[in-house]
Amino acid sequence: MHRPPLPTTSAVLELDQPLPLDGGQSLSAVRISYETYGHLAADRGNAIFIAHATTGDQHVASKHPITGKPGWWDRMVGPGLPIDTDHFYVICANVLGSCMGTTGPASLAADGAPYAMRFPVITIRDMVRAHVALLDALGIARLHAVVGGSMGGMQALSMAVHWPGRAARVLALASTAAMPAQNIAFQEVGRQAIMADPAWAGGAYYGTGAAPDAGLAVARMAAHVTYLSEATLGEKFGRRLQDRAAKSFGFDADFQVESYLRYQGAAFTERFDANSYLYVTRAMSYFDLAEEHDGQLATAFAGVTARFCLVSFDTDWLYPTAESRKIVHALSAAGAAVSFVELSAPYGHDSFLLDVPALDRVVAGFLGTGQ
Amino acid sequence: MHRPPLPTTSAVLELDQPLPLDGGQSLSAVRISYETYGHLAADRGNAIFIAHATTGDQHVASKHPITGKPGWWDRMVGPGLPIDTDHFYVICANVLGSCMGTTGPASLAADGAPYAMRFPVITIRDMVRAHVALLDALGIARLHAVVGGSMGGMQALSMAVHWPGRAARVLALASTAAMPAQNIAFQEVGRQAIMADPAWAGGAYYGTGAAPDAGLAVARMAAHVTYLSEATLGEKFGRRLQDRAAKSFGFDADFQVESYLRYQGAAFTERFDANSYLYVTRAMSYFDLAEEHDGQLATAFAGVTARFCLVSFDTDWLYPTAESRKIVHALSAAGAAVSFVELSAPYGHDSFLLDVPALDRVVAGFLGTGQ
Repeated sequence: MHRPPLPTTSAVLELDQPLPLDGGQSLSAVRISYETYGHLAADRGNAIFIAHATTGDQHVASKHPITGKPGWWDRMVGPGLPIDTDHFYVICANVLGSCMGTTGPASLAADGAPYAMRFPVITIRDMVRAHVALLDALGIARLHAVVGGSMGGMQALSMAVHWPGRAARVLALASTAAMPAQNIAFQEVGRQAIMADPAWAGGAYYGTGAAPDAGLAVARMAAHVTYLSEATLGEKFGRRLQDRAAKSFGFDADFQVESYLRYQGAAFTERFDANSYLYVTRAMSYFDLAEEHDGQLATAFAGVTARFCLVSFDTDWLYPTAESRKIVHALSAAGAAVSFVELSAPYGHDSFLLDVPALDRVVAGFLGTGQ
Repeated sequence: MHRPPLPTTSAVLELDQPLPLDGGQSLSAVRISYETYGHLAADRGNAIFIAHATTGDQHVASKHPITGKPGWWDRMVGPGLPIDTDHFYVICANVLGSCMGTTGPASLAADGAPYAMRFPVITIRDMVRAHVALLDALGIARLHAVVGGSMGGMQALSMAVHWPGRAARVLALASTAAMPAQNIAFQEVGRQAIMADPAWAGGAYYGTGAAPDAGLAVARMAAHVTYLSEATLGEKFGRRLQDRAAKSFGFDADFQVESYLRYQGAAFTERFDANSYLYVTRAMSYFDLAEEHDGQLATAFAGVTARFCLVSFDTDWLYPTAESRKIVHALSAAGAAVSFVELSAPYGHDSFLLDVPALDRVVAGFLGTGQ
């Protein structure tokens, strides 16, 4: 595709009030890095907030400043695309705890030194609290929609439950209302890989010239396998060898899938901070919308006012359809308006990011054109 | 169960001839540590060879000398049990490349120093070549059966293909004829976790007092999650907290599943050598029975004479039923006698090791009583 660059506004908001956190602490001087696309209508009613996934960022449809790659949802957000910037004012903010400009463990604390592990453990709701502060600053009382996949879906659901009325529509893709045990387990493996790296140094590696890149790469590799499907891996790589006619009888990356994984791990360390990985995955493992309602998800949804659309993918074994179905059942029990579709796509959990024409139709249909 | 200890013979065979390897090298003075249970019949026709899985060992039904735990298939092997030692002479040998007495990277090379990474990369067929040398030494021309789950199943299939006639029956549980890409990927993550640990030191950590325990623990954790099912993890742990009433808002093992994984990782380093983990998983990733037959598995099976029984488990997503079905189709195309059953069991890949009464019946029925 040869599209002209999408007009983008990059900005940073510094909150003038401390941000209270679920853990009981509060954070002062929180900075929120965000991008906007399109134009805010005079009535401020055409805003869509896109919440990014674990290692995503605000560059939803603009070139990534480190990797130079197109935005992570470039195919979904733009003029004439399913999230149509000719109609909507799209906002995407880097989440609290991350490392692309929003306050996180690499940021400087009041004493002038990086927080590192002094950064408080945050929750998905804390991330959304920061998003809501941004919406307040932008004067947006009610979003046309909040949209997100995976961890972005968790943020969308959290906004619907904890700030009812803030979004007229909630679109959650490949997500869950409570992190399942298997996902907690995989993320713990990633955190342990980082913390096992001596260069992690208890998180105090900033300014030392060292960083736990080896551990972070392993964490990324482990996670990356879970984002794909066996079908994708089988079709894309199978047992094909990498640039060689025969096995090396050694420990090089003989197989294409091994080479691919090593590349993914190494590339990730160029753009992501290991401590942020700890904090963001910790927030995900803590996510359980029903927790404050004796495990009754329908009760959690009792006060919602938005219309919901849930999407799952048949090859996504990390956030399987059953997770979306639980949400749909609870929303239905709470009397909320909800539509749900399981789409067939071969790409596993990553399907929400990839070329799935049926997803485009669902997204465009649910969001409408804001007219 | 309070059963008297099963009479066991522990022994070590040192091969007097070099063992040729698929990689083109050969290994001198190979030692094979093995155990036997029951009594060899006068006609030597009642022997069953059990091939162990990735991190298993010869202690199939005897107390593990390091952990003190019962044998890994204690519930399957013994008097009156499905693999009935009142009838059968059961042999289980530690595989080549492992670390429980059979020659592996921790063993001393001819120069008196440990092989470490000078140990040649081996294959599943190399492991079986060592098993066959052991059977030769024991004077066992034809096994009543060769039995194995997971990597043990690969060895059983390899013996059937490469040493036809050596086993009258082949029982392969939760296995595959060629390591799928997803499994190659997960094992690469494990190897990278070990090699990322500075204490690995290029494999030359023997005698230094250090070892890449942190990396090995991460590798084990990553693998362990894949051995279980989401259902098992959900039922066994769910989102329950570990010895606390509320989340710590920290990075301790708040969740039971995190604590369990950390324990599994740490415990594993007590009994397994990191370099062995590299070599054994490398052998698995190289496994592809059809490779020498232009990808035609049925051709690989053309010369087999054994009767086969394949078993898969419905919740095993690591070696799913489709993998066993490919084997069954190819065996059928080759005109071999094969029975196949997919059992329902909640434990994921680990089902073949756990309490699945239907499995006991399949195993006992297929093996008979040797009469």
